[in-house]
Formats: sequence, structure tokens, C-alpha cells
Amino acid sequence: MEDIKAFILDVDGVVCRGSKPIPEGVEGVKKLMEFGKKVVFVSNNSTRSRKMLVERFRSFGLDVSEEMLIVATHATATYIKRNYGELNIFTTGEKGLIEELEEMGHKITDYDRAECLVVASNRKLNYDLMTKALRCCMTAKKYVATNPDRIFPGWDGPIPGTGMIIGALYWMTGRMPDAVIGKPSEIIMREALDRLGCRAEEVVVVGDQVEVDIVAGKRVGCKTALVLSGVTKKENFKTAIKQVSPDFVFDNLSCLLDSYI
Amino acid sequence: MEDIKAFILDVDGVVCRGSKPIPEGVEGVKKLMEFGKKVVFVSNNSTRSRKMLVERFRSFGLDVSEEMLIVATHATATYIKRNYGELNIFTTGEKGLIEELEEMGHKITDYDRAECLVVASNRKLNYDLMTKALRCCMTAKKYVATNPDRIFPGWDGPIPGTGMIIGALYWMTGRMPDAVIGKPSEIIMREALDRLGCRAEEVVVVGDQVEVDIVAGKRVGCKTALVLSGVTKKENFKTAIKQVSPDFVFDNLSCLLDSYI
Repeated sequence: MEDIKAFILDVDGVVCRGSKPIPEGVEGVKKLMEFGKKVVFVSNNSTRSRKMLVERFRSFGLDVSEEMLIVATHATATYIKRNYGELNIFTTGEKGLIEELEEMGHKITDYDRAECLVVASNRKLNYDLMTKALRCCMTAKKYVATNPDRIFPGWDGPIPGTGMIIGALYWMTGRMPDAVIGKPSEIIMREALDRLGCRAEEVVVVGDQVEVDIVAGKRVGCKTALVLSGVTKKENFKTAIKQVSPDFVFDNLSCLLDSYI
Repeated sequence: MEDIKAFILDVDGVVCRGSKPIPEGVEGVKKLMEFGKKVVFVSNNSTRSRKMLVERFRSFGLDVSEEMLIVATHATATYIKRNYGELNIFTTGEKGLIEELEEMGHKITDYDRAECLVVASNRKLNYDLMTKALRCCMTAKKYVATNPDRIFPGWDGPIPGTGMIIGALYWMTGRMPDAVIGKPSEIIMREALDRLGCRAEEVVVVGDQVEVDIVAGKRVGCKTALVLSGVTKKENFKTAIKQVSPDFVFDNLSCLLDSYI
């Protein structure tokens, strides 16, 4: 563990479940900071801006700065600017994403004037929004999605993720995004490693989903730890890790640290 | 043409565009009836009941009975009853479909008590409805879709069809419907031939979409005629018929009859 200089932590299922903190997760983050390890959080959430997430962490008693957060919303805004410049964007996304896009210098427009379609989850999704997304997908030069998650664990059962919209558009138009930013894409993980200033072998990626977090960590050559405080449970983790094995499996973030620090 | 005893006519793009009549289409239907040809209408529309369609035809000055109409809504209700019995159904569909399902003896329930998921288009589609459909798709024993259309021609541009929901659910769950009722499925075409009491070679199928109407007609061995009064236009019909060739192509239903009767 002494070789380990930094941690890339998932948020939902590791530190909290929506607005509800996971005590062992919050405790774990505090320990990491006390032990002087570098930490960044990487979240596929496509509806929260970094500001919103800082507030949420504060409500858990965690003092986390915006620089420690790599959220799919902000990472998407950055990716577009870096690769295509400042664009006119139509997005299916919510306020949190719009905030990040505008702050990066992009302009939010209606579907028929957009140079770029940005697909992201929206709890106010309706037929009208899907119609606009369809038309934009048929005409916009660029098409980027914040994250690929098809299903997301809601408080009372599965709910559709950003992937639902990607799938619906693909079914209707045959077009897939030019880039998908969130995990397990390397794009967001490279951003995290840059931010840490560490080599991949010095970093452990911690998350609750094998296909999202563990795959992402392995793709960039980090060590990986699966925690069972989120989507993957004690009952099903053996099936989940059959295809892709994490280096470690722990009940939660605190357990991981108790064993290794 | 003397060998031709009956016609299976598509509705949208042949007789009308939404609530607006196509004069040559309405005229054509009148001529067919005057000449004593048998006629049934087969529509993939998943939001209108037969009653609603009878009313619409009446507003065009056409006296058409419910027996002459085979609409995806009613055909779906019939198919489920014939193959699975009367079921508890959760549907994404609208009033027109619910009307037909209930009239057939099925019971409309919430997603968590449904034996069967019926997917159909809904202009009030929202995130909540997609969440329920997702959960129902993961648990219901049976899954039927009214029609496969991915995109539908709206008055001001393309709009999502029932296929959008099929695609979104497939993307999220990997599950496809056990049966899709509308054209180009044989299910609805066999129903039409039964209703006419004719052999396939005595029937011409008329429609405006190659992949929907012409494919459907060919599958059951009917003669096929493409009309250019709907989705397929003079400018693009040569591309459209490259893979699947109709027996005839006409500007509209009246032209077809002028040439052959």
C-alpha cells in the first residue's frame, strides 16, 4: 500500500446513495485525507454540476473542492471545447449539465440550430424532448454523450440512465455518439490521472460497478477495488466478477482502508 | 385487374395525413367501393381505436364500418386474447389502445402486477412511464408491441414511433417483444386476408412505405402498389424501391384506379 499514492473514487454506491450518505464511505474518505493520500472523485452522473456535488459532500461533513471532482457533466463540456471548440449545443440534459456547458463557453440552442447534440439523462424527459433529440441527431455535425449507463439504481428499483436515450436514438437513426465521456471510457479516466499527476500503477480505482468502474480502472492500467456498498452486492458479486476481476473486493471503503493502511 | 377482388389499404399517407384528408386518396376509396371491390384498411397507428378511425373517415365523407378496419391497437388486443387469453396488462399506450384492450376483456394494471407488457407509442411519454416500462419489461411474462415503426412522419418533421420504445427497452434489458403486430409483420396481414375472405393473389396491398406496406404485402403473397402521397416521394422513390420492388408505383390512389379500372 505504500506504493499507492492516490485514489480515484466513484461517488454513487461508494460515498452516498443519491442524497443519502453511506457512513463507511464518508468515514473512508476522511481517513484517506488524514493519511495524506491524493483523492479525486469520478462520477458518471450527468445531472449534477461540480457545484452541486461540492454542496452535497459538504452536507455529509466532507470538505471537498471542485478541483477534486471529475463529473461527467463538466468532463463533457471540457472534452467538446478541447476537441471541437466552443459550440452551439442542443442537449437532452438537465440544469447541472447546462450550467457546466455554459460556463465552458458553449451556447445552448434549440435542436435546429445546434452544431452538437449532447445526450444526457433527464428526469423531465418527454415525447417532445425525444422528438427534438431525434431531429438533432439526424442533422447535428457532432454528437457526444455524457455517459453510457443504460440502467441506474434508483431508490425503489432500476431507472433508465443516459444509455436509454443513446439506444433509442441509435434504434431510430443508426447513429452512435462520436464520443461517450463517462466511465468505462478512457476519456474521463485520463482526465483523472492528469489531475492527480500520478502514474496509473500508483493509483487505486474504487467503485461499486464492475462494468463501469473496474473496467475503467483496468483500461488505464490502475489497480482496482470493488466495494459492495452499491449496485453490486454480497449475493451477486461472484457472478459480477466472472468476466472482469478487480484486484480487491471489500464490503465498503472503510474496510478497504482498515485492511491496507 | 379483373382478377383483383380486393384491396388492403394503408391509412396514413394514402387516405389522409393525420386528421387532414388526401383528396385523391378519399376519391380513390369512393371509386373502389362504387366498383364493388372489397376493401379493408390496415393501419399501424397505435394510438387510435377503430371507433376513432370510423369518426375520422366520416369527417372525410367516407362511410366505413369498424369491420373494414384493422388497426394495430385492435389487432394487438385480439392477438393477445387468442394466444394467451385475457391478461393483466401494463401498457405505454394511449386511450385508443386502452379502449381496445379493455373491450377485448383484458385488464389494465400498474407495471408491478402485469402479466403482459404492451408497448405502443404515446405522445405523453415521460421519464416515469419509461421507468415503469423498463421494470415491467424485466418482470412481465409476455411482451407484445403494437407496431415496429421507428420513426413516423409528423406534420413538421420526423417524430419517434413505437419502435423508439422497443429500441430503448432492448438497449436497457436485451429483451425484444415476443410478437410485434403491425406491418410488416404477417400477423396483421393474415388478419386482413381472413377478413376479406380472399386468396392473396386476388388482393392488392396499397401503401406509402416500402419497408412497411410493400414488405408486408410481399410476405403474404399479395400484389403490391406504392403510392407517392405519403412518406415516399417522387424524389426518393427510386432509392426506396432498390431493395424491395412493388409491382406498381402511382402518384396516389386515384391514379392507380384510373389506370386499371
